[in-house]
Amino acid sequence: MNSLFSAVETVDVRFPTSEDFAGSDAMHPEPDYSAAYLVIRTTDPDAPSGAGFAFTLGRGNEVQLAAIRALEGHLVGRPVDDVLADMGAFARELSGDSQLRWLGPEKGVLQMAVSAVVNAVWDLYAHRERKPLWKLLADLTPEAIVALVDFRYLGDVLTREEALTLLRERASGKAARKAHLLRDGYPAYTTSPGWLGYDDEKLERLCREAVAGGWNHVKIKVGRDIEDDVRRCRIARGVLGPNRKLMLDANQYWDADEAIRNMARLAEFDPRWIEEPTHPDDILGHAAIAEAIRPVLVATGEHLPNRVVFKQFLRAGAMGICQIDACRSGGVSEVIADLLLAAKYGIPVCPHAGGVGLCELVQHLAMFDYVAVSGTLDGRVIEYVDGLHEHFVDPVVVEHGHYRAPLRAGFSATMREASLARYVFPHGPAWRAMRKGQHAVR
Amino acid sequence: MNSLFSAVETVDVRFPTSEDFAGSDAMHPEPDYSAAYLVIRTTDPDAPSGAGFAFTLGRGNEVQLAAIRALEGHLVGRPVDDVLADMGAFARELSGDSQLRWLGPEKGVLQMAVSAVVNAVWDLYAHRERKPLWKLLADLTPEAIVALVDFRYLGDVLTREEALTLLRERASGKAARKAHLLRDGYPAYTTSPGWLGYDDEKLERLCREAVAGGWNHVKIKVGRDIEDDVRRCRIARGVLGPNRKLMLDANQYWDADEAIRNMARLAEFDPRWIEEPTHPDDILGHAAIAEAIRPVLVATGEHLPNRVVFKQFLRAGAMGICQIDACRSGGVSEVIADLLLAAKYGIPVCPHAGGVGLCELVQHLAMFDYVAVSGTLDGRVIEYVDGLHEHFVDPVVVEHGHYRAPLRAGFSATMREASLARYVFPHGPAWRAMRKGQHAVR
Repeated sequence: MNSLFSAVETVDVRFPTSEDFAGSDAMHPEPDYSAAYLVIRTTDPDAPSGAGFAFTLGRGNEVQLAAIRALEGHLVGRPVDDVLADMGAFARELSGDSQLRWLGPEKGVLQMAVSAVVNAVWDLYAHRERKPLWKLLADLTPEAIVALVDFRYLGDVLTREEALTLLRERASGKAARKAHLLRDGYPAYTTSPGWLGYDDEKLERLCREAVAGGWNHVKIKVGRDIEDDVRRCRIARGVLGPNRKLMLDANQYWDADEAIRNMARLAEFDPRWIEEPTHPDDILGHAAIAEAIRPVLVATGEHLPNRVVFKQFLRAGAMGICQIDACRSGGVSEVIADLLLAAKYGIPVCPHAGGVGLCELVQHLAMFDYVAVSGTLDGRVIEYVDGLHEHFVDPVVVEHGHYRAPLRAGFSATMREASLARYVFPHGPAWRAMRKGQHAVR
Repeated sequence: MNSLFSAVETVDVRFPTSEDFAGSDAMHPEPDYSAAYLVIRTTDPDAPSGAGFAFTLGRGNEVQLAAIRALEGHLVGRPVDDVLADMGAFARELSGDSQLRWLGPEKGVLQMAVSAVVNAVWDLYAHRERKPLWKLLADLTPEAIVALVDFRYLGDVLTREEALTLLRERASGKAARKAHLLRDGYPAYTTSPGWLGYDDEKLERLCREAVAGGWNHVKIKVGRDIEDDVRRCRIARGVLGPNRKLMLDANQYWDADEAIRNMARLAEFDPRWIEEPTHPDDILGHAAIAEAIRPVLVATGEHLPNRVVFKQFLRAGAMGICQIDACRSGGVSEVIADLLLAAKYGIPVCPHAGGVGLCELVQHLAMFDYVAVSGTLDGRVIEYVDGLHEHFVDPVVVEHGHYRAPLRAGFSATMREASLARYVFPHGPAWRAMRKGQHAVR
């Protein structure tokens, strides 16, 4: 069945999350969590389609969709089998488009569009193979996995041969790790209690609920005001007790020097990590912070656009926790490069999630990492945020602080038709119902 | 006259430059030089408008325009005087939009859009003040200049106070440097002879013409094949003789190790610099190359998205020549931060130009740098590419290898109405005349 890719359909989906400050942090006080959503169709009406998306904060979602549409010429009209037979080459072709590349290179809106399209094709692929994506990837041979990776610009720290050796070493325990994963799930942490827009009472109540719900890891937002941060950390640590893990997230708010000073104040609350202490491009700043605040770790990654930047952070000792993102840095193939780099440096991968559908996607990547790449759960936790899962056909299942391994075919990326219809921007009923101008700029 | 900004008009302008390989390099074999062009209007029909643009390579220009339109809510309806009174705050507001920022942050399509809008407002400002932009900026007090700069995330290498001290030290010689500039112009180099798609005969002929035209600095493209590079360098150096400067540009084609190996071969041709030897995100790779190839310098900057990344390169010793770009890294205000950083580290600024209108813009920035920031022309040259200037109302004037200082008011950003009408994509007559599909994807 030599079917062709026939269409890339896009939808501008936005949720008015700024209404209740869920998602609020030091740099993003009023996000409207949104998805630049796409569905890839083929000429075979009986074959599965593929869904993907880029996550955005509202304004600019239309720019993101334009970037996704700019890539459709690489897909529409091509035989599905040809593309699936070499997904590494397909991803390289997208990021390497010799005219579009100028708009990055490999960063920003274009790289997020590449991620969305690459992930949608992986979703289709996994549906066709009738496997959840994590299992499709974990079942690949080491040779097939390295064929997905673009080793260009990585040669000075990781060659194809080194990656192959690493994957072969991990191959022996794969069956046991798969069984463990299916039985116990993958450990998670929750960010839901600690959004910056929540008052102390709500923070305390949500921390209590998290503890009651079996969570051993809780993350709270910091950054705007150090006195507020101290008070909020005291509340959270008080509820969590001495043994549960507390993580902090400054969302880039501080200068490097400021981060070092403020973390000296917050050290008494024994945080496991400080996430995004400063601007995500300040690699040497992160390295200085990491050096100064030990044993607290520096966590970052959600804003890093590609494997070359991950390489900088790892080489510079600027990243103690590697927070891959499913929708920013080029999608599945590029994330595999990042997983291999993290494994080489022995840095735990704890994916960034939340937003719209990020939990649904990253669970697959973290589980593949455990089974085939890192081979361990030690110090690993996937972020979990309680929100918007009801809009997905195959939402995450989280129990007692663990993600259950998804069993349905695909990349869990498909949104419900009813949700798409209701939240399409600007004419969906959810938006028409809002008072005019309430979500305007500024 | 309290007029308001009333409209941001956009035009998708594309030139079919891939027809003759002008602009071809190792990563961009077939660019169609394009501009995501905008004009800012006000409610005062007698007041000047402002023009700006982002430069792209063709496909994706529509994405760039969508990003520019996403920013118009920050401008339309606001009093012109308020915005012009604090251009630093205006630029920070654009890059800091708490929803749009997620699409970068401060990189890629969104940062290029910020550059275009900020520059268009500066164009309007300079028209209103009846000064060329370089002179408007150079006439500002040190206090007014630092007010344009966002020092956030720079504190560990450059504070407002340090910048002020530096600018005050340079203030004394300003009048003499202005006079020198008006008399002798600003030294330039030409990239026109050495595009990668040109054969040896054309390369040699164009090098001879450059020498005959008074050029003392010529840059050629390298990267695809080292044997070709050796042969092309031999041709160029043969024509230039031992005393003129030869510069090389690999346009990111090499891995770091490969760059070091290849530059060992090319050292015999005594290049002044190698430009973009590897991926622009590989800061530590550039540092390793810089260390290995001394005294040849590493030049980079045209793909660096913001001041935080410039800070990385300078701190890491990864940049021997600082190549600011007018349209990528946030526009005038952000470039001033980069100029100050380069001055602090004593690194010569040699702007990236060519494309569509980049020569027109960067001449102003380099001249401001000379008069008010670096205070010297030593080792400084502005790139010059002979192409597309005829589409501008106030094109650059280059004589005997020097840019003449522009004397007309504005930022030289306005395109001719006839050019806009002819090259508007996809329905302008220049595009309708092309064979269908000739410029399609891939």
